[in-house]
Amino acid sequence: MEVILAKNYGFCFGVRRAVDLLENELGRTNPVYTFGPLIHNQQFVDKMAEKGAKIVNELEDVKERSIVISRAHGLEKEIIEGLKNKKVTIIDGVCPFVNLVHKKALELESDGFQTIIIGEKDHPEVKAAASYIKNPLIIENSEEAKKIPNFERIGIVVQTTQSQQNVIDIVSALIENIKDIRIFNTRCSATEERQNAAVELAKIVDKMVIIGGKHSGNTKRLYQLCFEVKPSIHIETANELEKDEFKNINKVGITAGASTPQYIIDEVIETLKTF
Amino acid sequence: MEVILAKNYGFCFGVRRAVDLLENELGRTNPVYTFGPLIHNQQFVDKMAEKGAKIVNELEDVKERSIVISRAHGLEKEIIEGLKNKKVTIIDGVCPFVNLVHKKALELESDGFQTIIIGEKDHPEVKAAASYIKNPLIIENSEEAKKIPNFERIGIVVQTTQSQQNVIDIVSALIENIKDIRIFNTRCSATEERQNAAVELAKIVDKMVIIGGKHSGNTKRLYQLCFEVKPSIHIETANELEKDEFKNINKVGITAGASTPQYIIDEVIETLKTF
Repeated sequence: MEVILAKNYGFCFGVRRAVDLLENELGRTNPVYTFGPLIHNQQFVDKMAEKGAKIVNELEDVKERSIVISRAHGLEKEIIEGLKNKKVTIIDGVCPFVNLVHKKALELESDGFQTIIIGEKDHPEVKAAASYIKNPLIIENSEEAKKIPNFERIGIVVQTTQSQQNVIDIVSALIENIKDIRIFNTRCSATEERQNAAVELAKIVDKMVIIGGKHSGNTKRLYQLCFEVKPSIHIETANELEKDEFKNINKVGITAGASTPQYIIDEVIETLKTF
Repeated sequence: MEVILAKNYGFCFGVRRAVDLLENELGRTNPVYTFGPLIHNQQFVDKMAEKGAKIVNELEDVKERSIVISRAHGLEKEIIEGLKNKKVTIIDGVCPFVNLVHKKALELESDGFQTIIIGEKDHPEVKAAASYIKNPLIIENSEEAKKIPNFERIGIVVQTTQSQQNVIDIVSALIENIKDIRIFNTRCSATEERQNAAVELAKIVDKMVIIGGKHSGNTKRLYQLCFEVKPSIHIETANELEKDEFKNINKVGITAGASTPQYIIDEVIETLKTF
């Protein structure tokens, strides 16, 4: 059976960078704190915990003068300040694309624009970006966009994982009433590239294996997209693979969600090759 | 028979202002030059010519130290400079909304944006606006927008008579590739307000009379919109009205294209009242 990997899969650039920084630091220091899980993958979090990573959710749980890695989607300003007060060493794991959201939001604010963030109000990335701005407005969809007051000028930044279509729908709604709009389209195309690559691969194989957390939204979406094209299964680890399911399959395609570590993907590939 | 006028009809603010300036000047000076017809209505142009207005299409046809009124949709930079060299007195008939297009385009250029004008390449308003900018790009539709190079930052101004939907379609296409976009939505809603008012009126009358040049695009559009709702006729002047056509009509609605002077509308109303 031939095993083919999607052109894009698994960790995006920003997550890979944060994970590399954490693994590198764990090789020489212990413990290293992260605020909330660094990525949403339980197997990976457990493995990092074994090596000395400590997940904390409150500032008071961080020891003075310790080492903290900031997550790929950023930390709120108050947390960063609290850490600095504790003389903590902060390793900057924030994705450069997320950093650009912060930078452009601040630029818009200092240029006198009402700052608008297109994104999910409860997402850590959006909460972090909003914490650096005085009066940000967070808009999730075009319905909300239609209801905002008639500002003289607005400046827009975009949560990195937003879909292009949602950005277009919201901007279209805002153009109706607001005469001066600046848009920094800070979305990142990694999610779409991963999805497109999965669908392209599904077209040329007999079956798709999608690897990632059962609760991971982006992994479920990959499964749905592949399932529309070819028979597909969604697994968390190689243990879930059943040899019987691959009878009469000549070519199997592999993709993985944004938080799936490479070693889990490698185990799946090795197992499939034995079938 | 009751005659009801649409809430918005005929001259928009900018055209009315230019016509007032011309009529005022003709009351005390003779001749007054205009570049091309001040408005696209033959009856009005003939009437103004009788009073001493002279339409010219070339700089060489304007006498030194004469008086020229600039049209509502503006004059190209080279023409203005040529007139100044001839020590001509220029009466500024440019619509303030059109002037805003020029002002914002210059602002974008001096702020380092690639300036884009959303509009019709051959329209005098767009040609005038473009003449003040070093390297403007004129985009008519979303197909053209998809083909423009990947500029680092673009700044957009909009021809005043563009439809909101075309602006949205073009901006949506540009957001795909360009990460930094500033939009001055300089379109003017006069055309849409006139259309909406005509349709609203058509709903409550038995028949609509649409007054305007037979070749006037915006008048024909008014006729089409009204015709979808109620029986409608499109006339240039009161002479075309036939009493027989208004048998059994209790309420008649009136609207007029953007270049239809008030005296022509008044004649139609008076004639209808005699039926």
